[in-house]
Amino acid sequence: MRIAIVGAGALGLYYGALLQRGGNDVHFLLRRDYQAIREKGLRVESVPGDFHLARVQGYLSSAEIGPVELVLVGLKTFANHRYGELIAPLVGADTMILTLQNGLGNEEALAARFGAERVLGGVAFLCANRGEPGVVRHLGAGRILVGEFRRQGMARAELLAELFRGAGVECQAAADLLKARWEKLVWNIPFNGLCALLGLTVADLLHRPVARSLVGEIMLEVIAAANSQGLSEALDNSLAGRMIEFSEGLGAYRPSMLIDREEGRELELAAIFARPLAAGACKGVAMPRTAMLHAMLESTEPIDAAVAADQLPT
Amino acid sequence: MRIAIVGAGALGLYYGALLQRGGNDVHFLLRRDYQAIREKGLRVESVPGDFHLARVQGYLSSAEIGPVELVLVGLKTFANHRYGELIAPLVGADTMILTLQNGLGNEEALAARFGAERVLGGVAFLCANRGEPGVVRHLGAGRILVGEFRRQGMARAELLAELFRGAGVECQAAADLLKARWEKLVWNIPFNGLCALLGLTVADLLHRPVARSLVGEIMLEVIAAANSQGLSEALDNSLAGRMIEFSEGLGAYRPSMLIDREEGRELELAAIFARPLAAGACKGVAMPRTAMLHAMLESTEPIDAAVAADQLPT
Repeated sequence: MRIAIVGAGALGLYYGALLQRGGNDVHFLLRRDYQAIREKGLRVESVPGDFHLARVQGYLSSAEIGPVELVLVGLKTFANHRYGELIAPLVGADTMILTLQNGLGNEEALAARFGAERVLGGVAFLCANRGEPGVVRHLGAGRILVGEFRRQGMARAELLAELFRGAGVECQAAADLLKARWEKLVWNIPFNGLCALLGLTVADLLHRPVARSLVGEIMLEVIAAANSQGLSEALDNSLAGRMIEFSEGLGAYRPSMLIDREEGRELELAAIFARPLAAGACKGVAMPRTAMLHAMLESTEPIDAAVAADQLPT
Repeated sequence: MRIAIVGAGALGLYYGALLQRGGNDVHFLLRRDYQAIREKGLRVESVPGDFHLARVQGYLSSAEIGPVELVLVGLKTFANHRYGELIAPLVGADTMILTLQNGLGNEEALAARFGAERVLGGVAFLCANRGEPGVVRHLGAGRILVGEFRRQGMARAELLAELFRGAGVECQAAADLLKARWEKLVWNIPFNGLCALLGLTVADLLHRPVARSLVGEIMLEVIAAANSQGLSEALDNSLAGRMIEFSEGLGAYRPSMLIDREEGRELELAAIFARPLAAGACKGVAMPRTAMLHAMLESTEPIDAAVAADQLPT
């Protein structure tokens, strides 16, 4: 399949590399890593085995790529106002747009710009960081759930799931994309938020009994909000305990929002906090701890945080 | 009056200096400032006018001071386990012990060690920092409310209020010490906690609308907890708004807990957070934001925080 990767941070580079290794015609829209990848290719340092792609099709503008069958969007969500500029040149008559971005609101924004019919969403449970330019580090996990945004039927989701599985990625088509998004938020809201705010890793948090309890309390707020959204099946409260246990295996993992803060980037607060809070508030679900965490993260962002061009991971 | 100051941080040095200037026989138990004060006295840089005490009675041990009429306690509360060692040599038959420390539990600990009859408590609304050794900076306010801990009658509280007024300190005897303590907690819990956790000044917090709202929400939790404690008169919810307005006048003030964190000292979490939370929980008052703030402050303290001897402000 002819594929464009827009937002070639850790997630975009990792899945793009696997898709290329799996035999697809992958085109990467690059920025920070452009020079390094042109010169020496792309190296993936991964738990199941490192590999290196000597020849990678990298570009500085989408116009050089032109229309593709699939656009895979991995942008930081605070760059969503650039969807038009970055994605429009890649869209042909039957182009699918799959966003693997965090949080809520990304499918809606893509649909508003390119039409709901084109849009699919995916939820990636991936632990990966960028290394030096030209290197991406896969630290663990990587499963993806893919689902349609508005279109009926599972055919395209099944096709994309097969595409990822063919590249060695555990992937299922999901009938209820919104449920998958909220499941990931149950993890993202406490761990991204608390790690970024407190400057702690996942292991740091889980080793402190009071912080561990707080993670669980926040997860229960998110589960309650999720279950007010008319999902096809309710999330069980036991998901909180299971996610905390799973997270112990992550060790000193630094969630993406902690890395964003450490590297002086804007945080993905609208997608991961403000929209889920608004969705809960709409249905009368109280989320005092989540709201407080959001307020504290927002209060420690630079005043007048502008989306500086050099903050984009493309 | 023959007075000993135990815990000569900003608060102890400031009030001690005023009491000495007012004609009292004041003895300072010193540590960090001992050498500087012996050599060049004590300088107070104060809004209403700087002054300098050329001759100050400073000591490194309480035994050198011996019994006094009044012990004024200004220790950081995490040093309360040293009450015996620091205060016992100062106590004679009729010695009064007045704690001006923050939070809850100090009078109880003094009463357990020295008898409830001796103990009075004071709530100081003071903005002061230490400067270089031998210098204390008074940034604003300074009013004290003094009350008995368990003893009936107002005679001693009136006597001490007169003592402070004679030294130029606005001071009233309070019939309900517990009410005064909770009033101060309404300010201390949000401002000390959020400023220390987020590394922000009072002005930083108040300039961010979301943080300003959060301050108010936390204040309402503390007011609800206060009003469950059987105070002589309930605190009105409007206290929150009035305290926030008052705090705008403080500008870029750095609350003591922010300074403690910046200087690597232990935080006064038991007195300012854990005991008020327990008092509220005892009466069934939910304080989710206060509890979350406490959890986050505790989670960012060094593991195995020990009271290192050099952390004491004496």
